[in-house]
Parts: sequence; C-alpha cells; structure tokens
Amino acid sequence: MRVSGIEALFNPSSIAVVGASRDPTKVGYQILNNLKRSYRGKIYPVNPKAREILGLKVYPSLRAIPDDVDLAVIAVPAPIVPRVAEEAGEKGVKALIVISAGFKEVGPEGARLERQLVEVVRRYGMRLLGPNVVGVYVPKTGVNTTFLNPERQSFPGHGPIAFLSQSGAFGIAVLDWAAMRGIGISKFVSLGNKADIDEADLLEYLVSDEDTRVITMYIEGVENGVRFRKALASTTVHKPVVVLKAGRSEEGARAIASHTGSLAGSDNVYDAVFKQTGALRAYGMEELFDMALALALQPPAPGYRVAILTAGGGSGVMATDAARDLGLWVPRLSDRTIEKLRRVLLPIASPYNPVDVTGSMRDEHMLEALEILLRSGEIDILIWIPYFMLPGVSEDFPRKFVERLREVERELDKPIPVVGAATGGAYTWEKALEAERMGVPMYVSVERAAKAAWALYRYGRWLKRQGVYAEYVERFRRLLGW
Amino acid sequence: MRVSGIEALFNPSSIAVVGASRDPTKVGYQILNNLKRSYRGKIYPVNPKAREILGLKVYPSLRAIPDDVDLAVIAVPAPIVPRVAEEAGEKGVKALIVISAGFKEVGPEGARLERQLVEVVRRYGMRLLGPNVVGVYVPKTGVNTTFLNPERQSFPGHGPIAFLSQSGAFGIAVLDWAAMRGIGISKFVSLGNKADIDEADLLEYLVSDEDTRVITMYIEGVENGVRFRKALASTTVHKPVVVLKAGRSEEGARAIASHTGSLAGSDNVYDAVFKQTGALRAYGMEELFDMALALALQPPAPGYRVAILTAGGGSGVMATDAARDLGLWVPRLSDRTIEKLRRVLLPIASPYNPVDVTGSMRDEHMLEALEILLRSGEIDILIWIPYFMLPGVSEDFPRKFVERLREVERELDKPIPVVGAATGGAYTWEKALEAERMGVPMYVSVERAAKAAWALYRYGRWLKRQGVYAEYVERFRRLLGW
Repeated sequence: MRVSGIEALFNPSSIAVVGASRDPTKVGYQILNNLKRSYRGKIYPVNPKAREILGLKVYPSLRAIPDDVDLAVIAVPAPIVPRVAEEAGEKGVKALIVISAGFKEVGPEGARLERQLVEVVRRYGMRLLGPNVVGVYVPKTGVNTTFLNPERQSFPGHGPIAFLSQSGAFGIAVLDWAAMRGIGISKFVSLGNKADIDEADLLEYLVSDEDTRVITMYIEGVENGVRFRKALASTTVHKPVVVLKAGRSEEGARAIASHTGSLAGSDNVYDAVFKQTGALRAYGMEELFDMALALALQPPAPGYRVAILTAGGGSGVMATDAARDLGLWVPRLSDRTIEKLRRVLLPIASPYNPVDVTGSMRDEHMLEALEILLRSGEIDILIWIPYFMLPGVSEDFPRKFVERLREVERELDKPIPVVGAATGGAYTWEKALEAERMGVPMYVSVERAAKAAWALYRYGRWLKRQGVYAEYVERFRRLLGW
Repeated sequence: MRVSGIEALFNPSSIAVVGASRDPTKVGYQILNNLKRSYRGKIYPVNPKAREILGLKVYPSLRAIPDDVDLAVIAVPAPIVPRVAEEAGEKGVKALIVISAGFKEVGPEGARLERQLVEVVRRYGMRLLGPNVVGVYVPKTGVNTTFLNPERQSFPGHGPIAFLSQSGAFGIAVLDWAAMRGIGISKFVSLGNKADIDEADLLEYLVSDEDTRVITMYIEGVENGVRFRKALASTTVHKPVVVLKAGRSEEGARAIASHTGSLAGSDNVYDAVFKQTGALRAYGMEELFDMALALALQPPAPGYRVAILTAGGGSGVMATDAARDLGLWVPRLSDRTIEKLRRVLLPIASPYNPVDVTGSMRDEHMLEALEILLRSGEIDILIWIPYFMLPGVSEDFPRKFVERLREVERELDKPIPVVGAATGGAYTWEKALEAERMGVPMYVSVERAAKAAWALYRYGRWLKRQGVYAEYVERFRRLLGW
C-alpha cells in the first residue's frame, strides 16, 4: 500500500534516510538508530560511502533503492538538499522530512536555498516537512525521525493527544516529559521552517485523524494568518485545540525574531483569533498538557457549576478558591441534596459544597456522595480529591470509583466530567494513574485540576455556541465506548 | 538534657505515646510505628491494657514511667484528654501533642473540652500542639507523630524548609509529595485547632532555628491578627516566609467555616498584611514550594534584570514571556557584552538576551556565556535552561556549571541568583537533581523557574527596603559556605 501526501509522514510503507551515518555522534546515525528501534516498515539508509549501518544494507543513492520509497528523511548539508529532493521526486517519493538546518533561519543565502527546495517539492507534487526540524514521532506506526541519543531521551506511548511544535528542542523535551508523566501521544510533529507543511495543513489532516482526540501546539508565529484562522475554526467544532503561543511580550517577540527570523505578530491578534475560533490558550507547558489530558479523557462540561468532592478539608477550600479564580461557580447545594449527603456520610463530614467526607472516610462514603452529586442535577463538573493514603480507602478504590461513575453516567442525559487531584508520593501516584488509565485525568494539585475543569467548561461552552455540543458528546461517548 | 517549651516538640529526649495501641488500624498503633522507625530517643507507650507493643514495654499511665518525659503524644478519646493532660503536668512533661479530634471543631461541647484542656496546660506551664492535629515531623531528630501507614506514605529527608500546615491531611500529602520530589524539610508542624501553639509562636521559634532557612505555611484563618502580623514582620527581615492562604474567595471562606468552624476573614486584609510584612504569597502547593526552594538555595536578587541562558530557542522565548508576565525585566545586553558573547558562541547562536547557545552547544559554550553574563554588571538574576539530553552536553555538565558559577560568584560584590528549568524525563531529572543538590533550584518548566526568580527578586526588594539586604546576603553566603 502506498500512501500519499501528509499521510506518508505518519504511516509510510518504507522510509529512506539520506545522510545515514556510521558515526554515533552524527544525526544521520541517531535517526537510523531511533527509527530501527520502533519502525516496522522497510528502512533504506542512503550514503554513497557506506555498505552497512546498524545491520541495514546501505544504498549509494535514492535512485539505487530497488523498491518504492514513501518517505525520505534528509540529513545532508543544506546546499545538497535541493539535489536530493530532485532525486526523491524522480523516485516518486511522497514526502520529505528535511532535518538539515542552514536554510531561511540563517539568512538570505539559506532563504534562497529554501525557495529552491520548495520549488522542487512542488514540481514533483511531494510534501515537505521542514527544513530545520527534528521531524515526526508516531508511536503507533513506529515512525521516529528524532535524533537524540535514546539513553538520554524517552518516548511516550500511543495516546489521544497530537502535539505540533514549532520548536524542535522544546518538542523533544516535551516528549521525554510526557513519557515520564505517562501521557500518550498520537502524533508529534516538529514544524521547523514550515517551507511547505504548516499548522493549517496539519490541522486539516488531524481533524479527521481517528487516533487524535485533542490537538496541542506550541507556536511562535504563523505566516498565513487567514488560513490558520480558518483551519482552527473548522477543527474546533470537531475536536479541541489547545495552543501555547510564545512571544506574548514585546521582549519575547524580539527573541523570536532573533532565533527564527520570523515575526511573532501582535499578541492581541493571536488572542482574538483563539477566542473567535474556540481554541483554548495555555500559558505554559504543564498547562498545555493538563488541559489536553482532560479534553482527551472527559467530555466537555455542560455548564460551569462545579462540585468538589474531597477527603481533605483544606484541599476542598483550595480547590474552591482555584475554581473561583477561573470564573467557575461552586454553588451551594439544595437542602434536599445536602440532606441526602448527610444521611450517607459520617457525622463529622461536611455535606455542603465542597463535600468533605473527611480523613475518616471509607470507600463507600465517597462513592455514595459521588452518586448523589451526579444525580442531583445541580452540577456540571466534579473535582474529585481522593486521599489514597487514608486507612479507610481500599487498594481497589480507583476502580470502584470509576465504575460507579460510569454506572451513573450511563443513566444521565448529559455528561458530568470528572477531574481528579491527588497530592502525594509514589503510592498516591500509582493509584492516581490507575484512575487515569480508566479515564479520569489526575493532577498533582487542586489548582491544576481546576484549570483542567475550566478547559472542559470552556470547550463545552464553545461547542454549545456552535450548536454542536450534543453531537460532539454523542461521538465522544461512542469513541470511548461509554 | 531536658528541653523546654516548643523545643520539646522538635527535639525531645523522650516521648510518651498515650493511647498506644496493638491494633494496626488504630492511630495509636501507627504513631508508635512511625516514631519507632525514626526516633532515636526513649519511647514510652502508655496503655493500661497492654504490656508490650511493637517490642516496646508499655506503661499503664504517664505516672508509671520511671524517667522524665519531655513530650507526650496523646491519642485517646477527647473527653479523657484533659485528665491525661493533668497527669502530664504532674509528671513534668514539657509539651503535649493532642492528636485526638472532637474539640472545638465539632461544636460547643468540644469547645468547652478544649478550654478545659488549655486551662490545664497553662496551669502546669506546658505547651500544647493541637488538638486535632497530625503532629510534627522532624527528619533530623526522627520525631514523627503522624499516623498514616508508611506503606502508603513517604517522608522527606532533612532540608532547609520548614512547613506549617493548618490542614493535617494536606500537610501529610505535601510531605509525601516532597519526598518524591526530593525537597528536604527541617520541621513540619500540623497546626490543628491551635488551642495554644499557633503560627506566631512557631514563627518566633523558627526565626532563630538554624536548620530552617525558609518558612512555608498553609493557613486558613488566624485568630490573633495583630500578633501574627508582628511575628511575620519580625521574621521576614531574617528569613523568608511564603504563605499559601486559603479561603480567598467567598465560597472558599464559606468552606473553611463549615470544616473548621473558624472565620477566614477578609482576604484583602490578609493580602495587605502579607505585602506590608514582606511575606510572599503563593497561590498553590507547587508554587509554595517552587518559591521556597529558590529562597532556600539561592540568595535574594539585587534587582529585577533577568538574563536567560538557554540551549533551546523556544524555551528562551517562553521564559521571556513568563518573566515579563511577572513584572521582571529581560533587558537588551550592551553591545560590549553581546560582542563578548558572540566571540565565544557558535555562529548560529544568539548572543542577545535570551542568550541561545542552540542545540549544537558544547559545555564550554554555556559556561563561557554564564561567566560573561555574571560579570557583565547588566543582570540581577539568571534563568538557566540547559538541555541535558543534547549530544554536546557532557555527563558532568551540572557539576561543571555549578563550579563555574561559584568561582565567578566568589569574585562578585553582589550575588546573582540562578534558577534552572529542565523539561524532560528520567535522564534530564537525574542531571537536574545533580545541579539542585549542588545548590541550583531546578524546575520542570520555564514558567515555574520564572516564578522562582520572581520570589528571589521580591524578597531581595523587601530586604533592601528594610535596609538589611547586604547583611542577609552575607549571612546566607556564610551559612552555605560560599
């Protein structure tokens, strides 16, 4: 099966690595090394001066490869790249990833070279990622064109979040972090100079990518604002987009100019575009993924009424503050609901909102309270603050909680998303990740959980305003098999 | 050696546990279990119905203990507590930690009991922590009166940060988190109902505690505002205090009222007190310790001019944004400094501020840039963004960096604090923690590093306004052996 266009970046049948090297200090070695560890398709190293690298037969040129090549990863000096691209075109290669630097980002001479490269790519109907990129990482197909030593860099598993990054270094650092945090990635793309493929192209691709439920991006500047805006608007009605846009400050914009040569543009304009297109804006790396994780695992909220269900009074208060800071509402519950809660909780518990089951809780107290809150009709989002280390909490509590949640959810006519906060150490995080693997996003602090709840509220509001909330929720639930 | 007053909480020669139990589901068992694991002084379990628990001889009453008792930890039902306190007084016990709940927090009957307890304590000249607390944790002396199962809860090692928490549950969760994060604690105190010992007492104690360089606290409400304010003001000229005050919002204040029965008071008043006394305010758990860590490891900054030294362009831009958001300044460097930087960096590097040594860097590029920036006289704080996974960075880079930093610092007439940001996974954090152990606080994101830099700037500004900056820095440097 041959695939075409952007699809060839993510799911090629065969990959050629032009500039493959025997020298472990060279990019051309590490790309091959990383690729060989995970990619299950055919790999063709290209280097006129080698016969075998890492056990793979080496070809003197693209032309010499006896089979079709879907994707060519190019890591040769910039001046040679257009010629290699020409050869790739003749060979019928679908897409190029140009790792090499030395193009637009270095000045007029490089810019000329870049235009020449684009001309070749267009002429042959190929697509080009880069130049000046670390490339792509797709856990599902094993495509990995990044070039850092795997002893210093880990990669996350497959998951529902796509991540596009204009900064390659930041991109791989985030992959490494995501692996440690246990966040799964559908596709990672480093954007580099964006001579051909840009954010808008990738949004258009990812909007119908079944493996991607949420799109995250780190961007510095966008060349074609009108197209970007259009792509955002037609994506966010189908799936959420969370954007970390750097260069907000004048000094930050100046820094972008000096490291990429591109203009950041006025931050007010970007901000307006994000608001008008329903893209959520993150102001840091952790926030970007905190929000994305919630949107990937939970349905968007039907409103902004937050219930807080906690085993620790102080955490309940802090969660309330954090929710209010973000404009969420922590309503008083009705007398009827309070009475119901009082009947099932310990006498020392607090049946108001936050509902504080206290450190003397046993599993059932929190499960009963969960059910009462979900069925009350008085809330739109629930912030869950378990203290897994408490003596009355069973080892099995994460499973019990999520099962009860699913049980009640199936009967409700509208979804009530749940996000969790679990401050603690190794045992707490073992339990928290059990809950997360079953679908409840977990955060190390109530403030981060509140921000995640906010994202679910804001995306829900956006979908409602576009008249597609019910449809989205229906699809989301089906997708997750609820 | 007998110790008296509050000191007996932290460094007692002997501890009695009244209400010690053989039943592992009971608090009176777990306290003894935790204490036995770490405390090296004498432990006297008290329980009229047992003869031996966890291999320790049990006494039928405090009176029956043949030796002096400095500290009594009391975990018997609330109504019996005043009688036990009476006995402790007769025995000459210096301090009580009353773990038991069922006092002021449960209503008028409990409040009466609490007043009775305080009366006894005052009469005998004892000090009382609690009631309704998880107690204290002091890694250095091994005192640990917390009562969670150690299979579910870890404890941090000794370090320069004291942590006071009005919420016991949040307090232990934070200890557990701090252990995982590698943050060391000098003293942890759970405040509970504060019938006797309160924040002001502990500030007065900690201000001259040699093991504590920074005081952190989680508070919900303070009874004696005037005394608290005075204690804060006389502490912050000697060491920094970082406060997480909950109940900022009306709803949060309502939640405090329902879980502790105390009034949170107007947040504006607290905010004014913090500003007027130089206490730094944190708005979440991570922020509290991010700031505290910086203040514990680095001197306060002489001004707000930030240099950013990065191996990743994007991270430099984000750090610039984050610094600007906080009101820090990321100045243009002088032509002279830019020229110096240009001479030692790679041609593709950016010698402006942020100084971007690029992913092609080798150790020396960043070390040279560090030295030039420190000696420039143009900056007051440095945000360091290494990418430890880069191929040109040696395994030994953290040590090299901190050594060069110390070398130059010794020659400077004013300190230039350094904070680091290292986004990444296992390898990156291994290296980051190497740097941190040598004294450079490290953060997972540039935003958190920027907030830490802000704390150093703000505390420096406070000390300058009080006319004690130079004196503080001098003492700080001596303390750390610089």
